[in-house]
Amino acid sequence: MRRDFVMRSAAVLHRFGLLLALVVWLGSGAPAFAQTDPLPSWNEGPAKKAIVEFVQATTDKASPKYVSPEARIATFDQDGTLWVSHPMYTQVLYCLERVPAVVARKPELRNVEPFKTVLSGNREAMAKLSMRELEKILAVTLTGMTVDEFNAEARKWLETAKHPRWNRPYTELVYQPMLEVMRLFRANGYKTYFVTGGGQDFVRVYSEQVYGIPPEQVVGSAGATQFGYDKAGKPILTKVPKLLLMDDKAGKPEGIHLVIGRRPVAAFGNSVGDKEMLEYTQAGDGARLMLLVHHDDGTREFAYGPKSKVGTFPDALMAQAKKQGWVVISMKNDWKRIFAFE
Amino acid sequence: MRRDFVMRSAAVLHRFGLLLALVVWLGSGAPAFAQTDPLPSWNEGPAKKAIVEFVQATTDKASPKYVSPEARIATFDQDGTLWVSHPMYTQVLYCLERVPAVVARKPELRNVEPFKTVLSGNREAMAKLSMRELEKILAVTLTGMTVDEFNAEARKWLETAKHPRWNRPYTELVYQPMLEVMRLFRANGYKTYFVTGGGQDFVRVYSEQVYGIPPEQVVGSAGATQFGYDKAGKPILTKVPKLLLMDDKAGKPEGIHLVIGRRPVAAFGNSVGDKEMLEYTQAGDGARLMLLVHHDDGTREFAYGPKSKVGTFPDALMAQAKKQGWVVISMKNDWKRIFAFE
Repeated sequence: MRRDFVMRSAAVLHRFGLLLALVVWLGSGAPAFAQTDPLPSWNEGPAKKAIVEFVQATTDKASPKYVSPEARIATFDQDGTLWVSHPMYTQVLYCLERVPAVVARKPELRNVEPFKTVLSGNREAMAKLSMRELEKILAVTLTGMTVDEFNAEARKWLETAKHPRWNRPYTELVYQPMLEVMRLFRANGYKTYFVTGGGQDFVRVYSEQVYGIPPEQVVGSAGATQFGYDKAGKPILTKVPKLLLMDDKAGKPEGIHLVIGRRPVAAFGNSVGDKEMLEYTQAGDGARLMLLVHHDDGTREFAYGPKSKVGTFPDALMAQAKKQGWVVISMKNDWKRIFAFE
Repeated sequence: MRRDFVMRSAAVLHRFGLLLALVVWLGSGAPAFAQTDPLPSWNEGPAKKAIVEFVQATTDKASPKYVSPEARIATFDQDGTLWVSHPMYTQVLYCLERVPAVVARKPELRNVEPFKTVLSGNREAMAKLSMRELEKILAVTLTGMTVDEFNAEARKWLETAKHPRWNRPYTELVYQPMLEVMRLFRANGYKTYFVTGGGQDFVRVYSEQVYGIPPEQVVGSAGATQFGYDKAGKPILTKVPKLLLMDDKAGKPEGIHLVIGRRPVAAFGNSVGDKEMLEYTQAGDGARLMLLVHHDDGTREFAYGPKSKVGTFPDALMAQAKKQGWVVISMKNDWKRIFAFE
């Protein structure tokens, strides 16, 4: 539509015989970021430089690094890359907090593990739940309802739940410097995509409002749905406990292929779960940009690395980043501020 | 980028103090299709009228049928809706014609059914292959290679294979009236998507070039891929025989949810395989448009209906279309011409 609008506008200007030269001059004008700093929340340094130079080069037709508009795909991990994921992934908290409502509907789960532990509210015991037990919790809290019901439940929770440290909604705990990066990419013709281990349906509830990313540009862990009809004969989609895509590690390039069908030219992550996505991005031809957010700011956010269960950043990943020319973003040194509310 | 360009252009025009009024006038100007006939290959009639009026109404802010730009999703079945699918689906022909190459690589299949029958070239025997046997053929011809290898093979075949009746490449046997519909929708801010029973990877090979639909807007039957590394250590994605999505019938709304994550406002199909997609589209709020292409032109293309195995259009579907207000497009009466080369 925009293209059409521009073309029609140009045609009318031409017909008016007035401003063709101006339009031509505009068309070849300076890139969007030349006028003001496109990344005001970033300190000057190698990370900011790498991002700005990459966007400039890949959108400059005279550059050997030029990337044609249709190939401009940038992918972003979410947890720990775009918003806070400590002490626990937001969606896991959602699932844990949904347990009482599920048990109210299915009382037979009340005295069964792992639901019993979750209902006890004993955080220490909850922290010890195994991956298998967590999966049981995810299954009953993320499936068994229609897509519309799930969306309404998740939306309601997101409006009221608050992070214990900042006492703010989770959707405010997004990294302002990364929002600026996403905007810079989009302003230069890039399609920005989530490629997250989080649930595709969960992230879609707020992706557009919080990040400017529409639902169709959210690649995430995805369960199957089942088409059917409700009692009134209305078509519905029900979320069923069958995993189609675990969008983590090797699942990230697999998910990118499934939903996007092209290789990104830029990819942002923060942990070992993003390694394969960055490798896959780098393996393409032409200009490439791979980045990892490093949580090294215990004062303003969190400092964690190889030993953290959530958002693990092993030493081997750091070594690989150095060897392969991936940019490591230091939250402490590269980010002037972390959140918009600061 | 376009939006940004328009915004920057507008800012400069304003600064020049010259043409703000003109720009405002352009912004509220007549829709793209008012100037010339947007559907020149269509005869005047209820189908053309329904399409043009729907696009006008849903993009007119003053209309109660207005649809906000981000919700403008139109989905299109492919086989029989956008290109010829008789006497057999193009992709099935591709798979059958790939069998010799596969057997050359795996000689142990030479005397095993169904490969033996396919190698015999006996079309009558091939027509009798069961769905189970066809699936075996699809599995060995569509999986077991990297995504890049598959793309190269499919591209090569599409460049050389020809439809027996028209002696032209399959990619020329697209319906010109439908290309015009897709362009009309896109010119008015709609995202056009394939939602096809055909293989997602197969369709992506030519979707952009032939239909102007980028790979990320192709929803189709999809197999899993597996991330790994080749002998040189380069990351690769290998197509594996595990079906993630059978994008037909109930699979269509399920696939739409998986890849797009929003309900379309307009949907085009041609057979019983599109019924659920049209029902799902209609079940949303606000303006809706559901259409079925009816193959009733045995002279210029094919005439088939309830009895055809390929692209079945049962009487019950016709009755449902009438009852629910779906538009049935008569190829014979509604289309001035079928192909661009006519």
